[in-house]
Amino acid sequence: MIKKQLFSPGPTPVPERILLAMAGPLIHHRDPAYEEIFQEVREGLQYVFQTKQEVLVLASSGTGAMEGAVCNTLSRGDEVLVVRGGKFGERWAEICEAYGVNFTPIDVTWGEAVDPAAITKALDANPSIKAVLVQASETSTGVMHPVKAIADIVKKRDGTILVVDAISALGVVDLPMDQWGLDVVVSGSQKAFMLPPGLAFVALSEKAWGFAEGSDLPKFYFNLKEELASAQKNQSQFTPAISLVVGLREALRMFKEEGLENVFKRHGKLAQATREAAKALGLELLAPQSPSNALTAIKAPEGVDGKKLKKNFEDMYGLIIAGGQSQLKGKIIRIAHIGYFQELDIIQAISALELILKEMGYPVELGKGVKAAEEILGAN
Amino acid sequence: MIKKQLFSPGPTPVPERILLAMAGPLIHHRDPAYEEIFQEVREGLQYVFQTKQEVLVLASSGTGAMEGAVCNTLSRGDEVLVVRGGKFGERWAEICEAYGVNFTPIDVTWGEAVDPAAITKALDANPSIKAVLVQASETSTGVMHPVKAIADIVKKRDGTILVVDAISALGVVDLPMDQWGLDVVVSGSQKAFMLPPGLAFVALSEKAWGFAEGSDLPKFYFNLKEELASAQKNQSQFTPAISLVVGLREALRMFKEEGLENVFKRHGKLAQATREAAKALGLELLAPQSPSNALTAIKAPEGVDGKKLKKNFEDMYGLIIAGGQSQLKGKIIRIAHIGYFQELDIIQAISALELILKEMGYPVELGKGVKAAEEILGAN
Repeated sequence: MIKKQLFSPGPTPVPERILLAMAGPLIHHRDPAYEEIFQEVREGLQYVFQTKQEVLVLASSGTGAMEGAVCNTLSRGDEVLVVRGGKFGERWAEICEAYGVNFTPIDVTWGEAVDPAAITKALDANPSIKAVLVQASETSTGVMHPVKAIADIVKKRDGTILVVDAISALGVVDLPMDQWGLDVVVSGSQKAFMLPPGLAFVALSEKAWGFAEGSDLPKFYFNLKEELASAQKNQSQFTPAISLVVGLREALRMFKEEGLENVFKRHGKLAQATREAAKALGLELLAPQSPSNALTAIKAPEGVDGKKLKKNFEDMYGLIIAGGQSQLKGKIIRIAHIGYFQELDIIQAISALELILKEMGYPVELGKGVKAAEEILGAN
Repeated sequence: MIKKQLFSPGPTPVPERILLAMAGPLIHHRDPAYEEIFQEVREGLQYVFQTKQEVLVLASSGTGAMEGAVCNTLSRGDEVLVVRGGKFGERWAEICEAYGVNFTPIDVTWGEAVDPAAITKALDANPSIKAVLVQASETSTGVMHPVKAIADIVKKRDGTILVVDAISALGVVDLPMDQWGLDVVVSGSQKAFMLPPGLAFVALSEKAWGFAEGSDLPKFYFNLKEELASAQKNQSQFTPAISLVVGLREALRMFKEEGLENVFKRHGKLAQATREAAKALGLELLAPQSPSNALTAIKAPEGVDGKKLKKNFEDMYGLIIAGGQSQLKGKIIRIAHIGYFQELDIIQAISALELILKEMGYPVELGKGVKAAEEILGAN
């Protein structure tokens, strides 16, 4: 018997109560019953985004909302900065390229966070930069970029907005959109929101909505101004992904029941336990300086094939973790602790890591990683 | 007790076996188990689309695939014809407008089908027309446009493609993409596919893929060429709506079990029964000449408020039907028989219609509509 469990940084495990909520008979999106659900969803999203702005719900993967962020706020020929330190940083660049937006990359070694001084320097060098595009948590490397520090730089400039891909950060770490002055915040359903993929979320500050007024890029399905007008009537511009929205209500109720502060603390503890366990086993973290609390990227040790290591998690114990992407292929494993995870889930992953490394001939002292994790998990 | 039942032309009822399939633990889209499901889905979609081309699966509503059809095959400043005889014809025009594609509308009275001669005439008048955009079944009016006749006209012209919104036609009526020479065919999950909304489908002919080579419109999330490359590896360009794809496999198995021919016959019979019942009650059809088998649009009779009539279906018997949109608001009701419907479902809708009209003071002979429907439904 193999009991399959998701430990991947998206999709993440879906709680049974959400699966059951989505399994009910489909309701019509023009029905008052749906509008009531959607109103609750709108309020719940504002709570998680920590914003008074409308959080728009799109029927797409997170990338759709990233595209919407670009094509609604910018114009052809605009200059932007893209923080590029992983696969999702590259995606910002690719979207800009598709729309004829000129980007200057701030290239960052994969596994490191961007230095805010590099952003100040680039903005000073070119005052016509319209936007800075960054990931809060770069899922491909497990790095957290210093979004607050970047926001402090960008908000002083009237002609520049900060666009944050918070797909694997929102609902994991404190990212108060309004308080920090983030202009566009993007997220998706299959991460901390504990849902299947298929929904994306995006919120714009007053400043970003101002930029939207001047944007000349073509948009239809991702026309956020039209989506806003529909949302304010508890509707969507086009047929919404009804069953996922019903599941989202349940997820948002879970956020409220636990309390955002506790959600952040839980993720912080699980992440720290994972990191300490890896280190106790003599393994090296890819991002020791600025790690994301959504996932932990661990380098495959000398002599251990990273692809085989990842595969063994599934083959031997049914745990679906992630490997490395692009230049990190075969070099790292990524263990997620984002969404529906508690202490003993992490113990399972660490225990599997110990058992598999031993099986693969790498010298580990069994129980040493678990002990290090327990010391964190048991602390108040 | 009110037992709610969907009789709307999208979303449509989701069979219990599909709901249950989607309620299982989420699987990872890079897992071999998912790739196996997706391969089966790809083959099943080719069966329903009656094509050898790849049918692309997008995480979006049907409108996303409509946008993809435009922005992947056309270029800025291109000239196209749009058949505009309802809300979804208008949508083609709006998408073209958003992308700077110049459209000439072929305006058709709402409730009527386009005359293919009008298309020949418009194409002859402007040989630079790159595409003809049409609905197979216009959901807002319940009209079926003569897609085969239009295809016969368009396929003679090397420089023109036929783009068909088959969102509420595919899996309802025979629409053999390859045999008829349809160049782009679009559909969506929440219609005959019996799924919640959130998936869109689109297939391109060789000719349309050729057009895609020359297209200069910006695209990223809906980049169909990239999506094709991913699909051929049993993957998606971006994170797919996994749970809906799992449900889709189940829906496609149901199509195969019943057989496409039988699916078309069933829809034809249910539609004819609904039309005959309405006529037997002395009601007027909006589209008597070229009705869609997906839904039946019935004019609210003199002295009966169409909005109230629609509302009474839900309030008195729990049936969610549709009203009129835009210029037809309050003037018609639309009863769907697309997807998971069988004979006795139609009897319920007709019986409700009789009971409600009587309650509203409109003179009906109870049972007369049901009798007319039964005469169709019971025939071989």
